[in-house]
Amino acid sequence: MKLQAPKGTRDFYPHDMAWRNHLHDAWRRVSIRHGFEQVDGPIFETLDLYKVKSGEGIVSELFHFEDRGGRGMAIRPEFTPTLARMVAAQANALPKPIKWFCTPNLCRAERPQRGRLREFFQWNVDILGSDAAVADAECILVAIDLLQELGLKPEHVRVKISHRQTVRHILSLLGVSDEKMEDAFDLLDRRDKIEPEAFQKRAGELGLDEPRVARFDQTCRYKYKVGSLGGLKKSLGIDGDELAALEALDQQLLDFGIADWCEYDLGIVRGLAYYTGTVFEVHEATGVERAMAGGGRYDQLIELFGGPATPAVGFGMGDVVLTNVLADKGLIPEDVSPRPDVYVLAATEAGGHKLGGVVASLRQQGVHARLSYRATRNISKLLKEAGSARARFALILDDEAANGTGQLKDLESGEQEIVKFDAVARRVKV
Amino acid sequence: MKLQAPKGTRDFYPHDMAWRNHLHDAWRRVSIRHGFEQVDGPIFETLDLYKVKSGEGIVSELFHFEDRGGRGMAIRPEFTPTLARMVAAQANALPKPIKWFCTPNLCRAERPQRGRLREFFQWNVDILGSDAAVADAECILVAIDLLQELGLKPEHVRVKISHRQTVRHILSLLGVSDEKMEDAFDLLDRRDKIEPEAFQKRAGELGLDEPRVARFDQTCRYKYKVGSLGGLKKSLGIDGDELAALEALDQQLLDFGIADWCEYDLGIVRGLAYYTGTVFEVHEATGVERAMAGGGRYDQLIELFGGPATPAVGFGMGDVVLTNVLADKGLIPEDVSPRPDVYVLAATEAGGHKLGGVVASLRQQGVHARLSYRATRNISKLLKEAGSARARFALILDDEAANGTGQLKDLESGEQEIVKFDAVARRVKV
Repeated sequence: MKLQAPKGTRDFYPHDMAWRNHLHDAWRRVSIRHGFEQVDGPIFETLDLYKVKSGEGIVSELFHFEDRGGRGMAIRPEFTPTLARMVAAQANALPKPIKWFCTPNLCRAERPQRGRLREFFQWNVDILGSDAAVADAECILVAIDLLQELGLKPEHVRVKISHRQTVRHILSLLGVSDEKMEDAFDLLDRRDKIEPEAFQKRAGELGLDEPRVARFDQTCRYKYKVGSLGGLKKSLGIDGDELAALEALDQQLLDFGIADWCEYDLGIVRGLAYYTGTVFEVHEATGVERAMAGGGRYDQLIELFGGPATPAVGFGMGDVVLTNVLADKGLIPEDVSPRPDVYVLAATEAGGHKLGGVVASLRQQGVHARLSYRATRNISKLLKEAGSARARFALILDDEAANGTGQLKDLESGEQEIVKFDAVARRVKV
Repeated sequence: MKLQAPKGTRDFYPHDMAWRNHLHDAWRRVSIRHGFEQVDGPIFETLDLYKVKSGEGIVSELFHFEDRGGRGMAIRPEFTPTLARMVAAQANALPKPIKWFCTPNLCRAERPQRGRLREFFQWNVDILGSDAAVADAECILVAIDLLQELGLKPEHVRVKISHRQTVRHILSLLGVSDEKMEDAFDLLDRRDKIEPEAFQKRAGELGLDEPRVARFDQTCRYKYKVGSLGGLKKSLGIDGDELAALEALDQQLLDFGIADWCEYDLGIVRGLAYYTGTVFEVHEATGVERAMAGGGRYDQLIELFGGPATPAVGFGMGDVVLTNVLADKGLIPEDVSPRPDVYVLAATEAGGHKLGGVVASLRQQGVHARLSYRATRNISKLLKEAGSARARFALILDDEAANGTGQLKDLESGEQEIVKFDAVARRVKV
């Protein structure tokens, strides 16, 4: 019999799990210090919930089933519909701004490939109830702080920012009509995925002549630094407040001191139709990997889920691409498993009688204490076991154990001293 | 449109999530100090994996579906099959004893009721590769340390312990043949769920006359203290080592100093046929709730999953009954949400210009720092907001902010002092 984990899913043995915990702890720690509160929802939701945002088309990407009452259910492929449902249900009771994060596992019935699995974890960060640029900027700030917390530097990654209204304004200046606007966004999104001829042809269908197509393309390929929107305005021949929303964001990014992580890239669209303002993605700097994170402003979604009009901005960051990027940069620590504080060893029978009590008492005091399952009283063998487990100290119990003392050996320095049992916890705890 | 969480599942709003984190952190902290390493597996597995242990009968209790290749899959209803698969796959490479824990969410297609949900969390603790009583006792020890960590005391809960071999021996003494042994265990398991007459009838089918049935019943109802196995042996007329396995466990429980939490209750069977030795359950002392935890020794399971013969012992503890019991005892803290270290407020325009930079810098130093989204410079309004958020300090930025200082106000004592920005982190971090 050969039983394996389902394709595209992962087994987390202790070493893998230690890394997963390291990453999730960082997500949580950073979120909390930025003032976000953790939430979560069910692992499965009604199939209908996922259709609200994404239509019938989503169903083939879901692992779905019927519950005992014949209702359609699906394992969550994303958290946003759950978030929207939860906010809509309590919208009036929740103080604003709502600043929430979560770290759910999500499942998608996709073909597994590099950076894409059928089950993965995603850090979700959202601010609801504020339409101010500070909310957009705080989302970008917390993402950058997380990247920095894991050892990444501005030269490793690019936070690419665009704004739907700015792009709409540019497209409009180029002559794209309101009716064709959605097609134009779609074309911008597919720009790098289609042949130049197909691009020209579709741009023509938008009513743009060749020079305008070239200008469209050029505008969207050029990167603008944070703090340099004047240049963009000049190149577009704008001198009013048409880019006011983007300018407000620009000021916040400067205030937060994160300009060197960011750039404006008007080619960032984020296919999802529900974004209404700022959109952004985090990419590895050389562009070899998929996006590490993506998000933006979605001011109409909560209404779509039956709640009151609620401006909102947020992003998701998956664990798979992030881990790939960190591994490529040599930023995954060798071993982040917890180390034992002390290994308690019995050198004599009398010591053995005290062993269980000492271990239990140390643990109850918060000490990571281990004992050997081997029957031997051979101390060098037992010390070897303690060393393999990376214990920091060994507590050796001999006949003196009956008097409440043992020998505490520092396994790094080799120093050894006699200590009372009730003093061990103080000595060995980090 | 009314969108709700599926029946029997939970939404975790921040207050609920804070408790869930509090509980999961305790599970993890206690597991680690007892020398267990964390693992996890996929949220869904092949349907076949669940049939290995439980047969076709399990399917109706599962949320199952087909993947794109038409293979049967199911959301995990328990972790043990995943554990067995993972251990079987790596059995020779893993150092023994394997001491693993995990805290998975599990889903069962059951009718939701008190203590039973369709999605819940379960702390799983297992020791594999040792058949020694110390392994059984360490499982019981870590369970008790967790209960104690959450504020429970011996008078609140009972760890009820039995041993398959001991019960088998008693049944055999009463005249139950090997062929009828499984039926006898089944009857013992159902004892409290069937009418006395049905019990008598089925006991008769086991070949037991009325006095023996009475003795059987009496033996299984009587509770024995840890350290008092002599009494049980005497009442059974045993003076050899027929109860050696239970006696070895008894000694370990005494050594660990946890006798007052435990009792032998030979009526504990744990229906699951795969248990081979020690079995135990944790119950609220008055017995009003379902079992809080249950487990035992299952020495043949890893082989069943294609691995080498591997003795094993472990248990599961769900979050739902545990939380109900803690709530009943008043042991759920009012609010375990993280408190902000400092709320940064701008009293003037000049202060406002520095606000973003100060907040971002504090967060990067690990400080839980918040800012207000309100445009007001009215300090008393802003301080009120900081108070509502339970912030410990407020840092007030006025025109002096340009010189790198602000007023740090302790929101508990009301004391206020002028501090340099680069000294704030040291002052406010817990």
